[in-house]
Amino acid sequence: MRILVFGVSTREGSYNRALAKATASVLETLSGVTVDHADFSEFKSPLYDGDHFDGTKLPPGARELAQRLSLADAAAIVSPEFNGGISAILKNSVDWLSLLRPVPFRGKPILLMSASPGQFGGVRGLWHTRVPFDALGAHVFPDMFALPNAHQAFTDQGEFARAEDKKKIRELAEGFTTFVRSFKS
Amino acid sequence: MRILVFGVSTREGSYNRALAKATASVLETLSGVTVDHADFSEFKSPLYDGDHFDGTKLPPGARELAQRLSLADAAAIVSPEFNGGISAILKNSVDWLSLLRPVPFRGKPILLMSASPGQFGGVRGLWHTRVPFDALGAHVFPDMFALPNAHQAFTDQGEFARAEDKKKIRELAEGFTTFVRSFKS
Amino acid sequence: MRILVFGVSTREGSYNRALAKATASVLETLSGVTVDHADFSEFKSPLYDGDHFDGTKLPPGARELAQRLSLADAAAIVSPEFNGGISAILKNSVDWLSLLRPVPFRGKPILLMSASPGQFGGVRGLWHTRVPFDALGAHVFPDMFALPNAHQAFTDQGEFARAEDKKKIRELAEGFTTFVRSFKS
Amino acid sequence: MRILVFGVSTREGSYNRALAKATASVLETLSGVTVDHADFSEFKSPLYDGDHFDGTKLPPGARELAQRLSLADAAAIVSPEFNGGISAILKNSVDWLSLLRPVPFRGKPILLMSASPGQFGGVRGLWHTRVPFDALGAHVFPDMFALPNAHQAFTDQGEFARAEDKKKIRELAEGFTTFVRSFKS
Repeated sequence: MRILVFGVSTREGSYNRALAKATASVLETLSGVTVDHADFSEFKSPLYDGDHFDGTKLPPGARELAQRLSLADAAAIVSPEFNGGISAILKNSVDWLSLLRPVPFRGKPILLMSASPGQFGGVRGLWHTRVPFDALGAHVFPDMFALPNAHQAFTDQGEFARAEDKKKIRELAEGFTTFVRSFKS
Repeated sequence: MRILVFGVSTREGSYNRALAKATASVLETLSGVTVDHADFSEFKSPLYDGDHFDGTKLPPGARELAQRLSLADAAAIVSPEFNGGISAILKNSVDWLSLLRPVPFRGKPILLMSASPGQFGGVRGLWHTRVPFDALGAHVFPDMFALPNAHQAFTDQGEFARAEDKKKIRELAEGFTTFVRSFKS
Repeated sequence: MRILVFGVSTREGSYNRALAKATASVLETLSGVTVDHADFSEFKSPLYDGDHFDGTKLPPGARELAQRLSLADAAAIVSPEFNGGISAILKNSVDWLSLLRPVPFRGKPILLMSASPGQFGGVRGLWHTRVPFDALGAHVFPDMFALPNAHQAFTDQGEFARAEDKKKIRELAEGFTTFVRSFKS
Repeated sequence: MRILVFGVSTREGSYNRALAKATASVLETLSGVTVDHADFSEFKSPLYDGDHFDGTKLPPGARELAQRLSLADAAAIVSPEFNGGISAILKNSVDWLSLLRPVPFRGKPILLMSASPGQFGGVRGLWHTRVPFDALGAHVFPDMFALPNAHQAFTDQGEFARAEDKKKIRELAEGFTTFVRSFKS
């Protein structure tokens, strides 16, 4: 099973990138799992403005994301909550990809995660973030994950500083891969 | 009362721009109402990536939107539904403005509208679109408006082709201005 | 494949019951599909108040719904939009069933539908209605269906009055059964 | 200013009732504020099934809630999250009241709160809970409040056990009353 993992940020020091990296490390230890850990800078695209797709105009970043998704059996996306909702960067990429047929998210198992320095870890935003994925027919894993107090969550080496977080992510990773296997390929 | 009106698109032929323009015309006929009908190209900003604001870095488009909002008593925003949710362009602008203190949307009455060629006019998307406005403390007018079959809704001169739409927008405009006046200035 | 179908109402003349009945008739014509067309009066339960479940206290209506769900491979639920959101009757049943382990909705494919005399058919409410199903790990079929102008949609015999509605429901039924088959049993 | 306060539960030991009681105590200490602290048992109503209202049929509990709301300038409602969403009991009451004209929630400032023994305090549910209030034109206070670890939050006398909770609720109460005063009466 191949899982595409990325954090929705290109900033150094983003907690969401850090959580993506640490989650990728945990997923890699699972038997039968190959991880494609991407950097979001590979996928960045100009703002989508309701343009129609003529078969050539999809921007390179969106095309790259579409291809990497199509090569993967599933994706784990770690995205910040901004103002109670989805990151514009992520929504922008989703909207570009929705021009393709078939839509690359259709029938794709997706694990949505979030990290924030606050006490709720972005959990409100996850419910807003999932809406376009649901609309496009992705299989959003029901156990979305929000990491609170993210500023204290990682060591300098990018590993989980709190044993309970590592344990939770391991259980989440196992639950998600079981979920992915529950769909006929 | 000064109302900022804009459609969230810079595309020629956008139904949401057309609805913004036609709504601005109706609002202008109301007694005591001044309309600032903006083109979204004035507000376009690069993608927001969780950056911190150091007092100088807000992009010019976001700064322009913040200033125009601060000069207005209320805003009417016409924004497309993409994949069941908010336009990334609009979310992006909202996130940039949320760095300012006070947040320009706080306590601001907002009329949210949408147009689409489909039968539902983008009504699902309006509920997703309002979330960041609610989170930031805007007063979202409860009677959001979705215009279905938008491809048949406008004349070549940009006026409402269907008498019932013009009537609905006039009632909406009157209801919204009454709503705006219900807040202490 | 066995599909449990019900409208969330016990009122005579409910459009949602009518849509459930007409949808059941269409589903029954599909090859390999058995329909369990239930009346919601079988499932009615007292209001759930955060009670804990001691293995005996689940009310008879909730127990009946749980059993019928467990016998089915999937469910089609037709539920009205009230005030932009989920019917309290449906939410009440979902909350009762969520006390069981495993939760009967987990991994169950669900088709959500709505009917209303208005122009939007309850489409806003479907997105609110799906949230607890998503939270409990049901597989909500992405193409939720809203029937507008429901007061003109049915003949006296309870059949679809408009040919395009019958066609849409047939396509929906075929899409949903394909979706159900995409999960490993 | 008169504020109606209630927890959406009739169970002894409900954390949401406890939070309602403790919040009522804090509100009562504010200058110019009168609290009507209700018990939800006064408002309980049979399940709403899309019935039409003939002017006499509204159940007594719903009628009582409507009257108490109409006597109040604002309301603070403390309601549990069940399965990521609104309590059926609360939704049921809202749907009954929506039959009245004018709708008692229209233009009414509402503070939504939640308590749970979990780490997120029901914050996801608050966003689902607010939807029907928004749809009916209530002014939902933007700073909704979720109390995590509610099993450790109260003393035997029903006071806040954690000084920081008491401080937060006091700030919340002050912010909410300022919000209520921002509307013209």
